[in-house]
Amino acid sequence: MNSFIIKGDICYSADKNTLITCPDSYVVCEMGVCKGVFGKVPDRYSALDIIDHSGMLVMPGMVDLHIHAPQYAYRGLGMDMELLDWLDNYAFPEEAKYSDLEYADRAYDIFANAVRNSATTRLAVFGTLHREATELLMDKLEASGSVSYVGKVNMDRNSPDTLRESSARASIDDTERFILETRDKYKNTYPVITPRFVPSCTDECMKGLGELSEKYDVPVQSHLSENPSEVEWVRELCPDTLNYGDAYDRYGLFGKHAETIMAHCVYSDDDEVRRMKENGVYIAHCPASNMNVASGIAPIRKYLDMDMNLGLGSDVAGGQTESIFTSMTEALQVSRLYWRLVDRNMKPLSVAEVFYMATKGGGSFFGKVGSFEEGCEFDAIVIDDSLLPHPQPLSLRERLERAIYLGGDIKALKAKYCRGSCLIRNEELGIRNEE
Amino acid sequence: MNSFIIKGDICYSADKNTLITCPDSYVVCEMGVCKGVFGKVPDRYSALDIIDHSGMLVMPGMVDLHIHAPQYAYRGLGMDMELLDWLDNYAFPEEAKYSDLEYADRAYDIFANAVRNSATTRLAVFGTLHREATELLMDKLEASGSVSYVGKVNMDRNSPDTLRESSARASIDDTERFILETRDKYKNTYPVITPRFVPSCTDECMKGLGELSEKYDVPVQSHLSENPSEVEWVRELCPDTLNYGDAYDRYGLFGKHAETIMAHCVYSDDDEVRRMKENGVYIAHCPASNMNVASGIAPIRKYLDMDMNLGLGSDVAGGQTESIFTSMTEALQVSRLYWRLVDRNMKPLSVAEVFYMATKGGGSFFGKVGSFEEGCEFDAIVIDDSLLPHPQPLSLRERLERAIYLGGDIKALKAKYCRGSCLIRNEELGIRNEE
Repeated sequence: MNSFIIKGDICYSADKNTLITCPDSYVVCEMGVCKGVFGKVPDRYSALDIIDHSGMLVMPGMVDLHIHAPQYAYRGLGMDMELLDWLDNYAFPEEAKYSDLEYADRAYDIFANAVRNSATTRLAVFGTLHREATELLMDKLEASGSVSYVGKVNMDRNSPDTLRESSARASIDDTERFILETRDKYKNTYPVITPRFVPSCTDECMKGLGELSEKYDVPVQSHLSENPSEVEWVRELCPDTLNYGDAYDRYGLFGKHAETIMAHCVYSDDDEVRRMKENGVYIAHCPASNMNVASGIAPIRKYLDMDMNLGLGSDVAGGQTESIFTSMTEALQVSRLYWRLVDRNMKPLSVAEVFYMATKGGGSFFGKVGSFEEGCEFDAIVIDDSLLPHPQPLSLRERLERAIYLGGDIKALKAKYCRGSCLIRNEELGIRNEE
Repeated sequence: MNSFIIKGDICYSADKNTLITCPDSYVVCEMGVCKGVFGKVPDRYSALDIIDHSGMLVMPGMVDLHIHAPQYAYRGLGMDMELLDWLDNYAFPEEAKYSDLEYADRAYDIFANAVRNSATTRLAVFGTLHREATELLMDKLEASGSVSYVGKVNMDRNSPDTLRESSARASIDDTERFILETRDKYKNTYPVITPRFVPSCTDECMKGLGELSEKYDVPVQSHLSENPSEVEWVRELCPDTLNYGDAYDRYGLFGKHAETIMAHCVYSDDDEVRRMKENGVYIAHCPASNMNVASGIAPIRKYLDMDMNLGLGSDVAGGQTESIFTSMTEALQVSRLYWRLVDRNMKPLSVAEVFYMATKGGGSFFGKVGSFEEGCEFDAIVIDDSLLPHPQPLSLRERLERAIYLGGDIKALKAKYCRGSCLIRNEELGIRNEE
């Protein structure tokens, strides 16, 4: 049960600078835990079955630190506005539909199916403010086999009547009920406290959410310093705070008490960055979204060099696709534009760095996740990159690079494992015991 | 023969501001020429077979104004350098291999197969400096059914011995032979004069190429003002020219005598832009490449507002993929970063504008191509966007937008027609005569 060996061309990150490639090797999973990568099967594992993915790329599952499940319905649509108008015109009207459980059921079936068929094994997910619809989403994500943190969103100000909670009290109480109903219900699915962003939550609401996070030891996710108009609005809404991050920090929603993800961080000032570093806040870098809604480019080189906690987010539907392979490519691309157009001291990102962010960097939010080092939870994907023909010999490292740029996950995902369970096997593959 | 009707959800550009969408309609092809789009089949066409693509997106074939066939081998690799180092370290060593016809045969098989399976029906293609390999490439592109202009590249300075012609005279003579051998050989494949870029060609070579273009009425393609170091280098190499464009113009290689495509135009000065406008030079906008090799962002809003000739180029392998759907998405994305980071007066591009560039804008280089207006050569693709599920109703315009952002061509290309010939039909579809 959940113990086996995968043979293939194995790639994983040891750290942000160290991409390890092991051609024609064996990665061992014992009871859902990785036992390491070997050139030949150690005697102590000789009884385990070998799943033969020879000639294919085998790597850790992808980690998506920021995705909006209800926005999946309009991915690739309506990106002709900046953030605040985009929310009013596209996001809020769509999310309001999730008061209808029948609509939620139909839409979340599509979302959960997409997650299941993607290269992603771990996700931090925004639902809507609707508790019941969000619990339905959790049921479906649990069935997908992925590991996810899912948030019922809090919104008690600055949104239309159709998408606003009646009071801070109601928002907090509903969130407490959400936590109690879900925290022990699933094997792979957990609640996360999710104030939409500062403009959507009154001080009373934020205060109550901070208390819930501490009381139940529940992590937090939200948005931070994404767009200049948004940052300015937060300054107006919270005149007594030093910056946007402070508006979370003063209520215990900025990593001091519980693990916290903040998406975007395009316009974080020095103090905000310092607090994130001190509190270990995770930055979810969402390059597609930052292009699509014209936010700008986040200074990821700076965050990497400061050894901050850092992963990638698809940010569907600010981002057009759930593919973290696409996010890696876009992270590489915008880092080059940042160097060219914004700051020549900020060296563009490398393939090793974005691969780290997509796996071990974001994965550490979930524990010992995102690598094939001994002791990691065993998440893996298998990519058949022979579908991308070439006339010349390529190293394994080059094959990985090419698969990233060419969206290898979409075309060629052959198998997927999460916590040692096989979630996808796209075709019959040889399973054998070499003994 | 080449006369039929396609039924489906039809989208095409009338001009850069006018995207026409006709749900459940009929587009008529008679002898390879489009006769227009109709809500019901006109009596005069009632004898034609109807190919039923109901429920699918039907649009003109995509046009790629700039792609390097020999670089397809290393698409998605080696984008950790700026242009000039990237050429020395990746492009030139790979292109040198095409002196070996056996390697060229293998590599160009892969390229031509990719073209055949893509949504692209028209291409302007760089080969290498090797005449024989380039003619082999033309044989294969002809067999793919696409319409292409293909260039034997000229390079007689500033490149390694393995990839440099022995003299200007040899380069010119070989190009003349190339033109004579290919100009009447194919139905859909034509030669184009292709000085690699100013740094690769001596004045004598450029002069001779200009004379060949005029003598044989052959169009021209090259690169222009892509990267700051390159522009500076051209200034040093050609101290008596006003700008990079002038270095082509003084030898008749800038649109005065023959249709000309210039790729990139990221750093064109006012005089260069004015000459392009006057001479009708086509600009091939290559957003992926401009990100990947850290060139910057071209001011496409300016060129569009000036009504310049403008299309999209994949620029493989500066660009990672041959998909013009991806190019459309990237053109939208970088235009938003241009607005945010470079010039707030430059409104981001719209979906209608990039779709125009990908079809009719670039298509006009090939004649009356890239639209479904009466009299256009009949190029069409069919996309089954039902593979992209959604819970809500979507308009046809929204479905097109979504298919662009989600790379509908890769996942869901069901059929492709070029000059009225069917090149792909991915599954059995109903063909019927409704009479």
